[in-house]
Amino acid sequence: MQRHFHDELNLVKQKILKLSSLVEDMVAQAVASLVDRDSRLAEETIDWDAKVDTLEVEIDEDCITLLALHQPAAGDLRFITTAMKINSDLERMADQAVNISERALVLNEEPQLKPYIDIPIMSQLSQRMLRDSLDAFVRKDAALARQVIESDNRVDGLKDQVFRELLTFMMEDPRTIPRAIQLILVSRHLERIADHATNIAEMVVFLVEGKDIRHTSAPPRA
Amino acid sequence: MQRHFHDELNLVKQKILKLSSLVEDMVAQAVASLVDRDSRLAEETIDWDAKVDTLEVEIDEDCITLLALHQPAAGDLRFITTAMKINSDLERMADQAVNISERALVLNEEPQLKPYIDIPIMSQLSQRMLRDSLDAFVRKDAALARQVIESDNRVDGLKDQVFRELLTFMMEDPRTIPRAIQLILVSRHLERIADHATNIAEMVVFLVEGKDIRHTSAPPRA
Repeated sequence: MQRHFHDELNLVKQKILKLSSLVEDMVAQAVASLVDRDSRLAEETIDWDAKVDTLEVEIDEDCITLLALHQPAAGDLRFITTAMKINSDLERMADQAVNISERALVLNEEPQLKPYIDIPIMSQLSQRMLRDSLDAFVRKDAALARQVIESDNRVDGLKDQVFRELLTFMMEDPRTIPRAIQLILVSRHLERIADHATNIAEMVVFLVEGKDIRHTSAPPRA
Repeated sequence: MQRHFHDELNLVKQKILKLSSLVEDMVAQAVASLVDRDSRLAEETIDWDAKVDTLEVEIDEDCITLLALHQPAAGDLRFITTAMKINSDLERMADQAVNISERALVLNEEPQLKPYIDIPIMSQLSQRMLRDSLDAFVRKDAALARQVIESDNRVDGLKDQVFRELLTFMMEDPRTIPRAIQLILVSRHLERIADHATNIAEMVVFLVEGKDIRHTSAPPRA
């Protein structure tokens, strides 16, 4: 049965990586829709969200089944409950990609306010953070998780830069305000994606380096 | 042992309600800091966040201990894993209250742009959604959870209203732009708090009405 359990656990890991890769594609494509002014890409991205929701429910059910049918030891138990939390984060990252797509649909109907420079960089950084946080999780690599956490500062810095630049546009010409606000919100959506990756990375550090349940003051197993 | 397990489960429920009530107070106080222009309240709110973080870790550890020491049946298992997810949502709602406090600190240094009307309403609605979603969880009340999900539309409507009104201010007088953007972001933080409550409510509906693990196609217990 032990082998059986680990096979099933591996299957869950594979599904989470599949979900993560789908979400990463959604982020990339939502931003591509904006940068390439191709609204078809935004619509496709919005459609993908249903696949994410299905996969999220499936992964959660797999985790519950694993916990119910086997009685995993503390380490595996913690891994599985962390997987369930990461699963929620991934689904919410996909929601952010949908939000970006919706803003792209609006912005692509208007003349382009300025060349998009920092937003694609933010997007690449966030995608990288997403990928690395998941790799850190399945490989239980706390060092990689710490790198993800550090990258969050760069994303925050870019978000502030986008804000300052667009503020200048708005102050100089109020007609740019609606488009500038949409772009500010796109940068906030990307920031939130990076925040989710940071949350995942923090969970990984705790999973790998945190207190072991056997050392807590909980009553001994009855 | 069964009694023991349910006592401990009740303790976890009490702790989650305590955390939820702390987060609710943080949201109320962050917005009060803005409305009353009392920056001391914002600073206090920011300080409370450490308590939230401590309580979050404690609840997660309690849940892991419950899962490790007892082998809860499917229903309890699902309840505990949902508690762990809700726990993360609560911690992130507290982060949003901190964000609101930080914007209050900035805004309180400037002349007030306009009387705050919709933002306090958004705040009250979000707090109510938070409280109801947690009550729905501990009482497994799917009907109440559905009410929370419906309330989210009102919060979104208010967020759009805040946005449109502040857009008018910005267009008419570009000097108002920095303050208006801060207020738009406050309304987005409140929207995110309502989103988290909605996420919690959705989990409650799934917990109460969702597929039962005993009916899945998973292999029978070995």
